[in-house]
Amino acid sequence: MCGIVGIVGKSNVNQALYDALTVLQHRGQDAAGIVTSHGSRLFLRKDNGLVRDVFHTRHMQRLIGNIGIGHVRYPTAGSSSSAEAQPFYVNSPYGITLAHNGNLTNVEQLSREIYESDLRHVNTNSDSEVLLNVFAHELAVRGKLQPTADDIFAAVSGVHQRCRGGYAVVAMVTGYGIVGFRDPHGIRPIVFGQRHTDEGVEYMIASESVALDVLGFTLIRDLAPGEAVYITPEGQLQTRQCADNPQLSPCIFEHVYLARPDSIMDGVSVYKARLRMGEKLAEKILRERPDHDIDVVIPIPDTSRTSALELANKLGVKFREGFVKNRYIGRTFIMPGQAARKKSVRQKLNAIDLEFRGKNVMLVDDSIVRGTTCKQIIQMAREAGAKKVYFCSAAPAVRYPNVYGIDMPSAHELIAHGRSTEEVAELIGTDWLVYQDLEDLKEAVGGGKIKIGQFDSAVFDGQYVTGDVNEAYLDRIEQARNDLAKAGQGVSNDIIDLHNN
Amino acid sequence: MCGIVGIVGKSNVNQALYDALTVLQHRGQDAAGIVTSHGSRLFLRKDNGLVRDVFHTRHMQRLIGNIGIGHVRYPTAGSSSSAEAQPFYVNSPYGITLAHNGNLTNVEQLSREIYESDLRHVNTNSDSEVLLNVFAHELAVRGKLQPTADDIFAAVSGVHQRCRGGYAVVAMVTGYGIVGFRDPHGIRPIVFGQRHTDEGVEYMIASESVALDVLGFTLIRDLAPGEAVYITPEGQLQTRQCADNPQLSPCIFEHVYLARPDSIMDGVSVYKARLRMGEKLAEKILRERPDHDIDVVIPIPDTSRTSALELANKLGVKFREGFVKNRYIGRTFIMPGQAARKKSVRQKLNAIDLEFRGKNVMLVDDSIVRGTTCKQIIQMAREAGAKKVYFCSAAPAVRYPNVYGIDMPSAHELIAHGRSTEEVAELIGTDWLVYQDLEDLKEAVGGGKIKIGQFDSAVFDGQYVTGDVNEAYLDRIEQARNDLAKAGQGVSNDIIDLHNN
Amino acid sequence: MCGIVGIVGKSNVNQALYDALTVLQHRGQDAAGIVTSHGSRLFLRKDNGLVRDVFHTRHMQRLIGNIGIGHVRYPTAGSSSSAEAQPFYVNSPYGITLAHNGNLTNVEQLSREIYESDLRHVNTNSDSEVLLNVFAHELAVRGKLQPTADDIFAAVSGVHQRCRGGYAVVAMVTGYGIVGFRDPHGIRPIVFGQRHTDEGVEYMIASESVALDVLGFTLIRDLAPGEAVYITPEGQLQTRQCADNPQLSPCIFEHVYLARPDSIMDGVSVYKARLRMGEKLAEKILRERPDHDIDVVIPIPDTSRTSALELANKLGVKFREGFVKNRYIGRTFIMPGQAARKKSVRQKLNAIDLEFRGKNVMLVDDSIVRGTTCKQIIQMAREAGAKKVYFCSAAPAVRYPNVYGIDMPSAHELIAHGRSTEEVAELIGTDWLVYQDLEDLKEAVGGGKIKIGQFDSAVFDGQYVTGDVNEAYLDRIEQARNDLAKAGQGVSNDIIDLHNN
Amino acid sequence: MCGIVGIVGKSNVNQALYDALTVLQHRGQDAAGIVTSHGSRLFLRKDNGLVRDVFHTRHMQRLIGNIGIGHVRYPTAGSSSSAEAQPFYVNSPYGITLAHNGNLTNVEQLSREIYESDLRHVNTNSDSEVLLNVFAHELAVRGKLQPTADDIFAAVSGVHQRCRGGYAVVAMVTGYGIVGFRDPHGIRPIVFGQRHTDEGVEYMIASESVALDVLGFTLIRDLAPGEAVYITPEGQLQTRQCADNPQLSPCIFEHVYLARPDSIMDGVSVYKARLRMGEKLAEKILRERPDHDIDVVIPIPDTSRTSALELANKLGVKFREGFVKNRYIGRTFIMPGQAARKKSVRQKLNAIDLEFRGKNVMLVDDSIVRGTTCKQIIQMAREAGAKKVYFCSAAPAVRYPNVYGIDMPSAHELIAHGRSTEEVAELIGTDWLVYQDLEDLKEAVGGGKIKIGQFDSAVFDGQYVTGDVNEAYLDRIEQARNDLAKAGQGVSNDIIDLHNN
Repeated sequence: MCGIVGIVGKSNVNQALYDALTVLQHRGQDAAGIVTSHGSRLFLRKDNGLVRDVFHTRHMQRLIGNIGIGHVRYPTAGSSSSAEAQPFYVNSPYGITLAHNGNLTNVEQLSREIYESDLRHVNTNSDSEVLLNVFAHELAVRGKLQPTADDIFAAVSGVHQRCRGGYAVVAMVTGYGIVGFRDPHGIRPIVFGQRHTDEGVEYMIASESVALDVLGFTLIRDLAPGEAVYITPEGQLQTRQCADNPQLSPCIFEHVYLARPDSIMDGVSVYKARLRMGEKLAEKILRERPDHDIDVVIPIPDTSRTSALELANKLGVKFREGFVKNRYIGRTFIMPGQAARKKSVRQKLNAIDLEFRGKNVMLVDDSIVRGTTCKQIIQMAREAGAKKVYFCSAAPAVRYPNVYGIDMPSAHELIAHGRSTEEVAELIGTDWLVYQDLEDLKEAVGGGKIKIGQFDSAVFDGQYVTGDVNEAYLDRIEQARNDLAKAGQGVSNDIIDLHNN
Repeated sequence: MCGIVGIVGKSNVNQALYDALTVLQHRGQDAAGIVTSHGSRLFLRKDNGLVRDVFHTRHMQRLIGNIGIGHVRYPTAGSSSSAEAQPFYVNSPYGITLAHNGNLTNVEQLSREIYESDLRHVNTNSDSEVLLNVFAHELAVRGKLQPTADDIFAAVSGVHQRCRGGYAVVAMVTGYGIVGFRDPHGIRPIVFGQRHTDEGVEYMIASESVALDVLGFTLIRDLAPGEAVYITPEGQLQTRQCADNPQLSPCIFEHVYLARPDSIMDGVSVYKARLRMGEKLAEKILRERPDHDIDVVIPIPDTSRTSALELANKLGVKFREGFVKNRYIGRTFIMPGQAARKKSVRQKLNAIDLEFRGKNVMLVDDSIVRGTTCKQIIQMAREAGAKKVYFCSAAPAVRYPNVYGIDMPSAHELIAHGRSTEEVAELIGTDWLVYQDLEDLKEAVGGGKIKIGQFDSAVFDGQYVTGDVNEAYLDRIEQARNDLAKAGQGVSNDIIDLHNN
Repeated sequence: MCGIVGIVGKSNVNQALYDALTVLQHRGQDAAGIVTSHGSRLFLRKDNGLVRDVFHTRHMQRLIGNIGIGHVRYPTAGSSSSAEAQPFYVNSPYGITLAHNGNLTNVEQLSREIYESDLRHVNTNSDSEVLLNVFAHELAVRGKLQPTADDIFAAVSGVHQRCRGGYAVVAMVTGYGIVGFRDPHGIRPIVFGQRHTDEGVEYMIASESVALDVLGFTLIRDLAPGEAVYITPEGQLQTRQCADNPQLSPCIFEHVYLARPDSIMDGVSVYKARLRMGEKLAEKILRERPDHDIDVVIPIPDTSRTSALELANKLGVKFREGFVKNRYIGRTFIMPGQAARKKSVRQKLNAIDLEFRGKNVMLVDDSIVRGTTCKQIIQMAREAGAKKVYFCSAAPAVRYPNVYGIDMPSAHELIAHGRSTEEVAELIGTDWLVYQDLEDLKEAVGGGKIKIGQFDSAVFDGQYVTGDVNEAYLDRIEQARNDLAKAGQGVSNDIIDLHNN
Repeated sequence: MCGIVGIVGKSNVNQALYDALTVLQHRGQDAAGIVTSHGSRLFLRKDNGLVRDVFHTRHMQRLIGNIGIGHVRYPTAGSSSSAEAQPFYVNSPYGITLAHNGNLTNVEQLSREIYESDLRHVNTNSDSEVLLNVFAHELAVRGKLQPTADDIFAAVSGVHQRCRGGYAVVAMVTGYGIVGFRDPHGIRPIVFGQRHTDEGVEYMIASESVALDVLGFTLIRDLAPGEAVYITPEGQLQTRQCADNPQLSPCIFEHVYLARPDSIMDGVSVYKARLRMGEKLAEKILRERPDHDIDVVIPIPDTSRTSALELANKLGVKFREGFVKNRYIGRTFIMPGQAARKKSVRQKLNAIDLEFRGKNVMLVDDSIVRGTTCKQIIQMAREAGAKKVYFCSAAPAVRYPNVYGIDMPSAHELIAHGRSTEEVAELIGTDWLVYQDLEDLKEAVGGGKIKIGQFDSAVFDGQYVTGDVNEAYLDRIEQARNDLAKAGQGVSNDIIDLHNN
């Protein structure tokens, strides 16, 4: 997962891009980058680290220009070198920079194609570099000295025809403005908005509406699936549908966990969706055990607090913040002659005993992935004196890998993969395990004032909306993950690639 | 405010000290330091920054030894250079290192004394360096080649006789162990505990019990006011009362804001105290306006959530998290030719409109200091569509400066200094302002199972328990603050002092 | 001026490239860079600084592969940002990296052409980036999926047809090997050689033969003007003449000052050429003043020692090293409220008084450019007690700017521009000034066993061998220098450009 | 070996101290430090590295004050951590900082004494920290609130009575000025001088007179053995003899190799002494082989050039610089899975073949220590085509370790230890080896206008002037060296000690 932003402003946009990236930082804490354009000159700064660590005064002073794009990156298997921080750049045609949230599922084929058709060399493992080269090639074949909006949109159409997967993209064509586009299924989110200043209207494209809010921009709307928005340096904005059969199927996991609660995605308030997840869960609990003996509802901070509060309300049970999160997590150092120790969940969470002692507690989390953390938390609750420890997940059982840009473990590492609810309950040590039903989750997100009929919910049901993901593909990426893991994280972390020094 | 920790272990203590400092990080994010001892050799690392930024692998590898102390520092006026990071060191006698939380009110006199009586040079503005030299002098005059527990405790007694103010201290006497002590009023908190390992019992002294919890230590108890605990390198622990007329008067602001909710201080659960603050506030609200029209209670994250939830419960009103906190705060850069812009509260908090629109909201914060943030938040609530915006503070009006180690503004910057509740309400723009009554606050903290009869609550009532703080003293420190402010933060920030390079 | 190197080896070439760059460091101390290729992946490290400061263990470990190129850069007006460190990279076609020594005189026209013909964006002020794009374009238009030697050489021919100026270039075509080429006048030097190892023959291309020597390579020969050498990754070496009317006119200043004495350039030993410069100077001195009263010959270290020793021999006068060079030059810091002080020549040289006291001294330097240092040195000699101070320059009067890659001041800053020898003598304060005659210099360099008939000696006689340098061009670059100087060195130094972060 | 400097000025002395340290950089390239004093506050910056790398603008801006001392350190066995960079500091009495060149031979006993008598903790292996504490103790026992010159000199006398070895020291007593002193045998050099400015007279103490020269100070004189110079902050200078039986026995190796040629030491010009070494060598050569067949004299750069030139003059043989020194030495990186390769002398020197081919060459070096470099150079000369390779050393055979502050190998690593000239000649592969006779060396240094009757020449004859160095002591330090070597340089290199962070 990543966060992207692009701004066409009326004065230097470096501070606004920086601020937007801090607001989107929850979408990726691994690397950050900004590129701005002034005249025909580009200025780039990107590196591994949080936004506040990557950009110092000396960098900001060089990031001049009224137009630019930015990116925050989540660490994904095989893309953690600082050379793969985004935005990426190619110098032909025009000088194009690009930042991307998502994942292409046909990257190997594309990589081969762009070399063979256009002799374009790709120097990293990043699908973003491939996507940039596809876009660049599609724009280059138009052969214009001065590309028009039609050329830009045609290139986006070309991308849609060749690329498979989920992608929300912002790209800057030096001298000709910024273009944002979204894959034909609208899997990954992207919005745009405007702000009135004394010098004129400024436009922002971003992964989430909250970036617009905090910077004083007004949300215009989400990009439709397949749609592109193009803003010239002078501030002329146009949108166009560039896909043949667009079909909105947004990633439902954004609402479960990824997005900030104060974002509006495809018209749906994430916060409200989470409240409804709590409601639905309460109904299921009451269905399953009408005479339950829950004394208190306790969220696992932070995401699940919203659902848990509403769940408690609906159950008529006390809501208590029984876990305190340690906000300053340190590292575990390996001293010479010492084996690596696991950082236990106790470093991250601390239980307030008096909320557990002698009570039947219902713990609430947004989802259960590997199950290892759950298990430790349940153990902590018992040590804090809980009589019974129940556990509910605001999302259904996660059984399949994600291939559209969320870094999740492969199938065999998912605790619910091939296991029943009871089996998972036993493994994590809970007295009662309640998963949200998938239909309830879809209803919670897509059943409000704004209706959404179809989602990418593959991690729950194994249905991949792009139609090209089969067993063989999944086996291949699992193999690649394993190979990388064996090669050693340290090493993959340390590769210095071309754009980097 | 600062956090301190000391450990006498059975194997290297560097990782445990590091982990403890991350748990205490909320007490100070400005600087961090650790010193360990191995044989007669000391190893030190300290610098400005968060714990995770100050200590890298290369530092940790050098911090060897089974005994050590650590410190995290809150930025206080005039002590922000990295040379004033703690622990401090003097080489005579024995080699002593010391870390300190609190503030001495007679530092100028002490500074003169130690030079004149012992020719000791003090190179920083830090009262901790002065305190270390007083302790060192008191130990030196015992004249022992091998100091005993009696010598150590006698030196602490000497410190108590000469120093005024609030102080919780941990010091390491090279080759002879660690001593922790607390001022005779017990203003600043300090606890100690133990952990059983295969190699024997390990001891930890820390500012808050939560550091013990997270590292698997069991709380033995708080140090009593005036008391000292001394642990030899071999792990023999002794305690002794070293003050003549100790009188427990702990800082009540620890419970209001400073401490983590999962800490137990002087026997009182901070979490429970905060729940009771919510209860008391609810009672006052119902007393003031029995037929109030509050639709929803909304906390200002994070500290006030505990009180606000209980307040809502008692009022029978809905509790909602209407503000989302941005956890990744960036900087505002000053570009050439540009004036400095203020970082608005909008960078830190974002309102979820649907919880405000058309409602009468009661906002809850832990306290109101300068009032500037309050004012902006109330404005945000109105812009989000609130009909009426009420505001309550879990603490009484803050009217006087703190002189015992909390970095608060001087009197004239406090919005409630010399103003009535109504005047403050008008200034911050709320429709109704409710302050906790001081008696209620004292009851909330000291009226539970563990009774505490007296507090340092000077910031609310101007009563300074050490008896030596008068108008002249307060004027002097206000003047010093102003001078420093004029001299420019940048400069004071940049001094490199002696222990630093 | 810069130094370049390329190696096709049989094992990792990073250390060999690094060592070669340290040997070539005298050609440029401003920035350094290495790019290597392993499989289809490139690894790059470049930054401002000396070779030993730019490359640390972590960088070297990533610079894997048996083939690579490197560069050291001399600071030239307007190219001092670390983004303009070389090698440069373009991803299309094939992924090409390039490092360059020299200067193009038609860079503006080329820059326009490559954008218009190929839509290629150039992001720096560096003519090397332009040259790379011209080469890339010429290779791209061949349209080969797998370029052959013919394609490579054709691209070099294309470069020769379009580019004007002096250039020695090494470029790596990812997957297809390394090519080195030299401008049709052979202005800048470039040699190649081989080394036999157990794994087979390895090849190196470098600016100077000394890099071959020190690494145990044997010099094969210099590239002829217009010629290219192409070495495949497997180690097949071919050369081809790629220019229509090549004409050797090497830069004579290489022999005067730039090159290391132990290099052989175009067949001529630099050391021997310098000895002959001393001989010629002695003859001129004896011609001018057969009964001179010189007591001692003293070189200005380091370059002129070779000529000075031979001059003393021929004159039959004592040779003495009367100046000691300070090898560790520090900076002059500007303290707040203080004006910048000039670093005087006294920081760099110290006179040994006893070699000056009461004597008539003949000082020898390689050349006189601005004249400011000369003047101070002559003053030092007088203060050390010299009776008379004579001065001779192993090169003729420098009167015109260099446009082929040596960073020299513009005409108006040259002390001899428009002045007679007598006028210069008076300005620098010497009792007698002797310049080498240009014919003597040409004879010293080109009149040995290997004859060279024509040189680029434009700095002495204003004759620019490329034929395209006129008054208007010189005015334009002087103007550009002045503009940059006004804009402030600090700023131009600090630009972060695209390939940089 | 180290370099020291102290300045009492009339304005900020940071730049002058910095400049002086760059001039003294040849005495130590391992670490550098400066401490200044302003009012009662000290400002310190020290770290490993060259002067130009240790001090940046931000450090210099903080090093305020009109008085200060500085140090450059040569790497010695066991003192290479940055914590052992100098100056050192103790806070009692007065705050004293100290920098030292030399070595104490009774450091273990002193270390014990200062702990037992004064409970002073010493945290490093550095004898300088011990010396500082001895001086501090001697000053403390005077018990003065305001120490006078008499107190300062009495403390120096105390140091002389307790410390054995060679030491030249500069110390700053905060608020009371700077004192410089020299051990009673005057083994290590130290001079002082003055400079007139508009604000008054400024004084400098330094290791070598060249530091005075370059900064425009005039040499007053060398400190006599046992003498101290004390300069108050106001600029009052006094000197006093503080030893009972001072006896000048300066280290003769300073003239052979350590000192800069343009320094005057104990009245003797180092440059002139080296010329005389060349003369004496020529005489010996002519005595040994009156009809020698030497064609050319070639120095090993840089130190031996002075002697070699005069030797050639006296022999009437041509002098040629046949070796070119590479001034930019890089590192040899160890790549994973690769054995460490030795950096050969070829990286440092390159032969100009034409000066060797077919000739009988006499190579000249200042001294022969381990013999490994010699051997390689002789081999290079043969490969360059020399017929016969002769070798002479301007110093006698080095047969014993140095214990007064020069980091030389232990006895068993010295090629001449227990070997005849013929045996050494065979080992290094020369056709003829000529060592300077010790009497000739003493005459070259001490037989000029200024007579010096006695030297520390222990490395040549094993006579240690301090009288306390016996077989047992030498065995002990050899053992300590071996232990350290086994423990691994990397580790000792990496210890962070107390004053360091």
